[in-house]
Amino acid sequence: MNPRMAAFRARLGGFAFGGDYNPEQWEPAVWKEDVQLMRRAGVNLVTLGVFAWASLEPEPGRFTPEWLDEVMDLLHDAGISVDLATPTMAPPVWLSHEHPEVLPVVEDGTTFGFGNRLHFDPTSVHYRSAAARITRMLAQRYSQHPALAMWHISNEYGPVAYTPSSAAAFRQWLRRRYGNLDGLNDAWYTRFWGQRYTSWEQVNPPELPRSWSNPTRRLDYQRFVSDALLECFVAERDIVREYRDDIPVLTNFMRFYRRADYWAWAAAEDAVALDIYPDPGQADSHVAAALNFDLMRSLRGEPWILMEQAASSVSQWKVNNVKRPGRMRLGSYQAIAHGADSVLYFQWRAGRGGHERFHSAMLPHSGTRARSWKEVEALGNELPRIAEALGSTSTAQVAVLFDWNAWWGLETTYGLPRNDFDYPKLTTEHYRPLLQAQHAVDLISFGSDLSRYRVVVVPNAYLISDGFAAALEEFVAGGGTLVCSFFSGVVDLANQVRQPAYPGALRRLIGAYIDEYWPAREGETFTVRSADGTLSTADWWQDSLHPETARVLGSYVGGDLDGRAAIVENTVGEGRVVYIGTRLAEAALRDTLLEAVSVAGVAPVVAGAPEHVEATRRVHDGAAYLFLLNHSDTGSATVALPAPGVDLLTGAAVAGSITLEPAGVVVVRMVAPQ
Amino acid sequence: MNPRMAAFRARLGGFAFGGDYNPEQWEPAVWKEDVQLMRRAGVNLVTLGVFAWASLEPEPGRFTPEWLDEVMDLLHDAGISVDLATPTMAPPVWLSHEHPEVLPVVEDGTTFGFGNRLHFDPTSVHYRSAAARITRMLAQRYSQHPALAMWHISNEYGPVAYTPSSAAAFRQWLRRRYGNLDGLNDAWYTRFWGQRYTSWEQVNPPELPRSWSNPTRRLDYQRFVSDALLECFVAERDIVREYRDDIPVLTNFMRFYRRADYWAWAAAEDAVALDIYPDPGQADSHVAAALNFDLMRSLRGEPWILMEQAASSVSQWKVNNVKRPGRMRLGSYQAIAHGADSVLYFQWRAGRGGHERFHSAMLPHSGTRARSWKEVEALGNELPRIAEALGSTSTAQVAVLFDWNAWWGLETTYGLPRNDFDYPKLTTEHYRPLLQAQHAVDLISFGSDLSRYRVVVVPNAYLISDGFAAALEEFVAGGGTLVCSFFSGVVDLANQVRQPAYPGALRRLIGAYIDEYWPAREGETFTVRSADGTLSTADWWQDSLHPETARVLGSYVGGDLDGRAAIVENTVGEGRVVYIGTRLAEAALRDTLLEAVSVAGVAPVVAGAPEHVEATRRVHDGAAYLFLLNHSDTGSATVALPAPGVDLLTGAAVAGSITLEPAGVVVVRMVAPQ
Amino acid sequence: MNPRMAAFRARLGGFAFGGDYNPEQWEPAVWKEDVQLMRRAGVNLVTLGVFAWASLEPEPGRFTPEWLDEVMDLLHDAGISVDLATPTMAPPVWLSHEHPEVLPVVEDGTTFGFGNRLHFDPTSVHYRSAAARITRMLAQRYSQHPALAMWHISNEYGPVAYTPSSAAAFRQWLRRRYGNLDGLNDAWYTRFWGQRYTSWEQVNPPELPRSWSNPTRRLDYQRFVSDALLECFVAERDIVREYRDDIPVLTNFMRFYRRADYWAWAAAEDAVALDIYPDPGQADSHVAAALNFDLMRSLRGEPWILMEQAASSVSQWKVNNVKRPGRMRLGSYQAIAHGADSVLYFQWRAGRGGHERFHSAMLPHSGTRARSWKEVEALGNELPRIAEALGSTSTAQVAVLFDWNAWWGLETTYGLPRNDFDYPKLTTEHYRPLLQAQHAVDLISFGSDLSRYRVVVVPNAYLISDGFAAALEEFVAGGGTLVCSFFSGVVDLANQVRQPAYPGALRRLIGAYIDEYWPAREGETFTVRSADGTLSTADWWQDSLHPETARVLGSYVGGDLDGRAAIVENTVGEGRVVYIGTRLAEAALRDTLLEAVSVAGVAPVVAGAPEHVEATRRVHDGAAYLFLLNHSDTGSATVALPAPGVDLLTGAAVAGSITLEPAGVVVVRMVAPQ
Repeated sequence: MNPRMAAFRARLGGFAFGGDYNPEQWEPAVWKEDVQLMRRAGVNLVTLGVFAWASLEPEPGRFTPEWLDEVMDLLHDAGISVDLATPTMAPPVWLSHEHPEVLPVVEDGTTFGFGNRLHFDPTSVHYRSAAARITRMLAQRYSQHPALAMWHISNEYGPVAYTPSSAAAFRQWLRRRYGNLDGLNDAWYTRFWGQRYTSWEQVNPPELPRSWSNPTRRLDYQRFVSDALLECFVAERDIVREYRDDIPVLTNFMRFYRRADYWAWAAAEDAVALDIYPDPGQADSHVAAALNFDLMRSLRGEPWILMEQAASSVSQWKVNNVKRPGRMRLGSYQAIAHGADSVLYFQWRAGRGGHERFHSAMLPHSGTRARSWKEVEALGNELPRIAEALGSTSTAQVAVLFDWNAWWGLETTYGLPRNDFDYPKLTTEHYRPLLQAQHAVDLISFGSDLSRYRVVVVPNAYLISDGFAAALEEFVAGGGTLVCSFFSGVVDLANQVRQPAYPGALRRLIGAYIDEYWPAREGETFTVRSADGTLSTADWWQDSLHPETARVLGSYVGGDLDGRAAIVENTVGEGRVVYIGTRLAEAALRDTLLEAVSVAGVAPVVAGAPEHVEATRRVHDGAAYLFLLNHSDTGSATVALPAPGVDLLTGAAVAGSITLEPAGVVVVRMVAPQ
Repeated sequence: MNPRMAAFRARLGGFAFGGDYNPEQWEPAVWKEDVQLMRRAGVNLVTLGVFAWASLEPEPGRFTPEWLDEVMDLLHDAGISVDLATPTMAPPVWLSHEHPEVLPVVEDGTTFGFGNRLHFDPTSVHYRSAAARITRMLAQRYSQHPALAMWHISNEYGPVAYTPSSAAAFRQWLRRRYGNLDGLNDAWYTRFWGQRYTSWEQVNPPELPRSWSNPTRRLDYQRFVSDALLECFVAERDIVREYRDDIPVLTNFMRFYRRADYWAWAAAEDAVALDIYPDPGQADSHVAAALNFDLMRSLRGEPWILMEQAASSVSQWKVNNVKRPGRMRLGSYQAIAHGADSVLYFQWRAGRGGHERFHSAMLPHSGTRARSWKEVEALGNELPRIAEALGSTSTAQVAVLFDWNAWWGLETTYGLPRNDFDYPKLTTEHYRPLLQAQHAVDLISFGSDLSRYRVVVVPNAYLISDGFAAALEEFVAGGGTLVCSFFSGVVDLANQVRQPAYPGALRRLIGAYIDEYWPAREGETFTVRSADGTLSTADWWQDSLHPETARVLGSYVGGDLDGRAAIVENTVGEGRVVYIGTRLAEAALRDTLLEAVSVAGVAPVVAGAPEHVEATRRVHDGAAYLFLLNHSDTGSATVALPAPGVDLLTGAAVAGSITLEPAGVVVVRMVAPQ
Repeated sequence: MNPRMAAFRARLGGFAFGGDYNPEQWEPAVWKEDVQLMRRAGVNLVTLGVFAWASLEPEPGRFTPEWLDEVMDLLHDAGISVDLATPTMAPPVWLSHEHPEVLPVVEDGTTFGFGNRLHFDPTSVHYRSAAARITRMLAQRYSQHPALAMWHISNEYGPVAYTPSSAAAFRQWLRRRYGNLDGLNDAWYTRFWGQRYTSWEQVNPPELPRSWSNPTRRLDYQRFVSDALLECFVAERDIVREYRDDIPVLTNFMRFYRRADYWAWAAAEDAVALDIYPDPGQADSHVAAALNFDLMRSLRGEPWILMEQAASSVSQWKVNNVKRPGRMRLGSYQAIAHGADSVLYFQWRAGRGGHERFHSAMLPHSGTRARSWKEVEALGNELPRIAEALGSTSTAQVAVLFDWNAWWGLETTYGLPRNDFDYPKLTTEHYRPLLQAQHAVDLISFGSDLSRYRVVVVPNAYLISDGFAAALEEFVAGGGTLVCSFFSGVVDLANQVRQPAYPGALRRLIGAYIDEYWPAREGETFTVRSADGTLSTADWWQDSLHPETARVLGSYVGGDLDGRAAIVENTVGEGRVVYIGTRLAEAALRDTLLEAVSVAGVAPVVAGAPEHVEATRRVHDGAAYLFLLNHSDTGSATVALPAPGVDLLTGAAVAGSITLEPAGVVVVRMVAPQ
């Protein structure tokens, strides 16, 4: 476990509770009321300074941090710790006014102007030097401040810039990756459409139109963008570490964010942190939230920070629904259940103006009479009851692949048999039945160690690395179970079709070859008959599958591929592979996955619970905490406890079974951790 | 009443009838036929020169107006008056060829080129000086021409330009508005997202992307655009007035046009004029037309000019339906019923080429055999029968707010709880039941005098000025009735949330507070139970309403806000406030509005008429004219007359009740004006 | 018949079979396997070099054709002929790197970058001189190579460029067309909206926004673009002809391609060639395919080359469906049935990378085990059985207008009564019943000789030339039958409404005038009653039709035009005109067309066959070949033979009737050609 985070946890002594605090929006008189209300709500950590660059450096090199001194002191006096942000996501207007070339040129070729956020080209030397200057000022001035508990580097990294500066940086990145032009030409398959490069200067980011063009160039540009942004993080991280080395340094991630390879990023941080805004208007947005939470935990295999959530509605969508009563609490515990060590919000007090004036805050426009304030206040005062669970971790025997290279291959390169793949959606379809059956799940990347798992699930991994293919072979040979879905293993890291095709990298594991991919016609569905005669439906896709060593688990009835295999299993070494050549309907996919997990001998966290109940376990120091969450708004749920224990939120001893109210939460310290 | 317009009316002696005449499209031989046919059709006014700049000034400073002399004389000889246009909406190609910076840069960042219309930046010095030169030439040459009856300044003002020139003008406008940068920074709430400006040179129009950015900057840009266009109008108006001061000067407005605050514009004109093209493909387009007509009358509280309509179809939409038989006549009388003193068309003779070759004209491609020509000719010969009603005016006791600042706040600033507000649509929903119940209605702005009304209706006024809030308080205190709908009073003119929230400015009037706004989820509807047990439906929005001094008129049954107030009433001083916290279905909104109007003691123009009958009254000099219009295409309608009188179109004496044919029109001079 | 093509056919001795071959994607070892497999599949022609520019000229002026020498020799040794391409559709990166102004600026104003194809402005001098240089190199080096059988100039010409270079070329083109500015001003009707030009330098391509602007300027720009692209073709054609004059030179056309007037292009080529990719996901895509095939045959009245098709799926759409078993063979014979002398594919071997890596190839990723390979191989070995039909031609007595000027008028000029015309779709609606009734059909242009036809069908020809109007009059006067649909004859080549309107040019032929066009309201349908009382439905449009000399064949029942004529017939001289003033539903349009064809005495190719059977006839040298194709996937079809004969695919004698399996094909050499 990361020692800086251990110190952070020890300092707070419980779950972090609080949020982004932007005092520069208010007069000092308001600050006093803020701190009083923070204490009333149990706040112990606030993030300061995310948008404060213009307030801290109104002109280039002239600093005005006195107000921040005062706020830091005020918070410290109230016993509230500070997560201090470098404000480099929102450069002051003087930067782009003096150096217009700092502004990014976005996908459609237009220059993204001042007035929003993220208005910088991450490769710009002007941006980087200004960001370093303000970071150094903050580090010098506040590193030893007693309120300081954490460094928050910038915010939600994201901009892409199709600028000359970015083009030059891309060329440098390519030179490092490929060494010489032959390497680039081979990887990019420039022999097609006569695209061969003969000098580095000819090489540019994908140009307009950015869709129909060399698919490996597009893929490499995704990689480059992630790396270029990460360089910005690392540069600021290294500056603050110069001044003090025992404080965690991190940045905040976003839900299913395609532009940054969070596996690579997590390794450069002391902890993973997430901003998440599940849409209250979507009935099952908690499923994708759970996946994101498990992903955050998996990125470093450690507890993580829920850095931002909304007290109620947000303001970024066409229609911004509120969180119904109890749902904010439920979602907060859901994050903790999946390994979060904090409940933090954007933001503390609702601003009167600006684009996000209607983004709900802990303290809303309507003040302490508001329902949402009361729920925030209640949660802040309830969390200390589970403080002992802080820092606890989880283990899982089932892993689901979620890799950025796989994602980029499927969604950004075009020219596929179908071009409406939604990688997070497809992955969520595979994750949902595991969650609903109360299985503990890790997410993994191409580079993950598979040895700790019994089952690995690989959803629709069109692009797969040589290393991961080899790791899967070793994993299965050693007794593991692989469940893999259609259109996997097709291309390598250069987006080139593996030979012999198909399924390329996975042919031996699957024990079958595919001569053609048959995407479904408009409205077409398929019927699959299992060995036992059960009929299920599928849609969207068919591999034209020809078993070699594999056995047929299900085959098509009717349709163009009548009688052809739809699902096969194969034995390789000590292990088992189940391959699904179509997009099974929810029930059939659930049955297929749960059968594989069950055969592999993996048990759920609790047995026999209804689908709308989530169950996770966190353990440490010989203690185990069972989290039970009822996602139904209307029905209660009874769950058999695997062991007796104490319900930490009520203090009551519990045994046998326990009943959760709608949107109910139970946290049980179990007497006999399994 | 405006004296220049009084002179104009006296000159014509009846309703103006005619339209845009573009003789430069035709050989002189055609002009003679034109004038003959105009006389046959009863034309007494034509608008000349709207597109004639290139014909009048083929090269910079070289004028060729001889053809116009000839046309003016020809018209005068035929007894036809001229509304002479400054042709400054369509600059000749030489202007943008010599000065490409004259071309506007539009919303998406592209330069709007030559070949359409409105291809100029209204802040361009090149444009303004060229416009002044051609205007001065026309004023010098034609001010004393006997045919001249009116000046038509430019046409349908509209372009927005995101150019350096516009940016400079915007900065000047902001300096005038705010005096110093602190004022601007406070109003724009630049403390959020670190947007503080430290020099005027840093300030620009909203940059790409223009949606997600500082909402007050966007709001001020709307205000600036309206003012910048108005400056163009005023500059030309002042030139023509130098040469002759007794002729009305005006420009033509458009239906629900968001870019120009017509309340401010109307004050700078001698009369209001409207171009209107209700879509014949929309069954109830006459309702929005009526609202626009009432708005035109209300802008100056005087008769107005229907400057352009189509004889039948237009050519600007994907599908351009024709007006069914009788509908053009009905729509023409509808304008008159709402205060128009003219029936004018675009254009006299259908052109053979150009973008609008299929826009219907008074004289269509198919000539005098065409159905539409026959209807035009008949109307022109019928209108003199109602000449005595010319110049008459109306009064109303019910007013509906239609304010451009309210509109801009709701539609152009983003980040709201929902971002699909359609201000004209919502306002029309409130206006429709009043129209269908034959009530006389004025439209009002924030600055209007409320003392003449008994009922004021405020639909969804998210943004409200301090002055209007105070005026409403005074109005209600003095015995007025206010009906107000959800999400009103929230922000001030700087788009900043009023404290204490919500509903901010209207809290005392409404007698309730709102802790949260609940936009509806996809497909969600609500049930509202009135005190008397009636159930009605609603959708789209719920205020979470907490009555303080208010009484509940209707509350939710079921749903998230089960039992919570949906409609409340409050007594303030001598007056009454009805507040509607949701989007009521048509019937419930009608009942709520008509109950309030009825309780306030306001009577309709006629009693007991069916919904598809429109009834208005115009009065002057002791005479009252009752206009009855039947908007049904299939059913006749019988209407009880409030008094006996003479049907001016037939000359028959009428009393008791009168029956209107489908699409029928009756104009009754009533013997005993009420 | 074109002598160069006759020599080409003689050289091959049978139908050309093969496809695009891009050996530069592979190592020489693969080439050997390629040639072996080509021989196994019956390949006798490959297209080389389409994308090879960068491989042939890696730096400006430095040529590296040695690999091509080797491939040419290898192919020649295997008896495979070569269609050698000039690679000028895909310029090397050095061209646009050195001369960025070579890149086209597309419709939306953005510059189309390197990385796709067609990244050149066809008017660029840099492009043209580089294209000439590589063309000359190839011509010098390979003109006498024994493998060379055909020149393939560039590929799928298409780019449009809104560049300064294009603007200058457009002005030159306009000067040639109009001689002086008065001509241009008159044609463009610049008297409207004040658009008069006073110097050539003011004239530009349509500027942004390109939709709402002068419609004749847009129309002329379409013409100019087609001509500018054709100049590129002619320039390269003339270079290769300098070196050898007895080889056919052509380029490849695309399905319903609006930018190039293929009638003008076909005259500049030795043969017409088509690339076609009917969407296997569309049930009736074979109908539009048949129309395109007939169009290709009609363009020169000679056999043509099917230059590209897919062995199975393509990769350019969102969802790329495969061709079901047998459909590729059926589609190949369909092309031959309509006059093709070849079956060629894009491409020979599926590439491992690049945008089109999943575009199916003759030899797919999954190799010779793939179903699609087996079908390709079988077809290649089957085609020699019908070799005797090579070079045969067809005759038709029914012609359908398909003219690019009519297309441009209807779809690119805007401002019409409705602006969702889809010319290919409307034309296909008129073509479908003729195809389904097994009639032979030619497509014609405004310039075609009509004397060989008995029936001419003119679908929705809004724009019609004076010459074609005169030709139609002569055709009908001489006894021909004209069937014409609504909104025809309205404007002339300058897009100006003809006087007297409407229907302008066709008024005498139709014997009726139209006073108004009534596009349908949303969802509106019409009922038409024929003279015999039959009721049919129609939608989308109504002419308000007033018969003069015409007789009514069908009239509206109910609706706005109740009782008005919907379909009329007129007798002119010896001929007959049937005019359809609405969009008849499929059955009614079929009955109207087939009645007209039948009355005109035209017989189908076979009688009484079901709709899903296609029947065509090719003849030469006293022999007649009957092609029968069954487009049903599920039902067989029995067809009565007009004469006994020999089924060339089976060798069996056939007489009386013959039964086709689902997707079945029969080619009968008939003993007694009619």
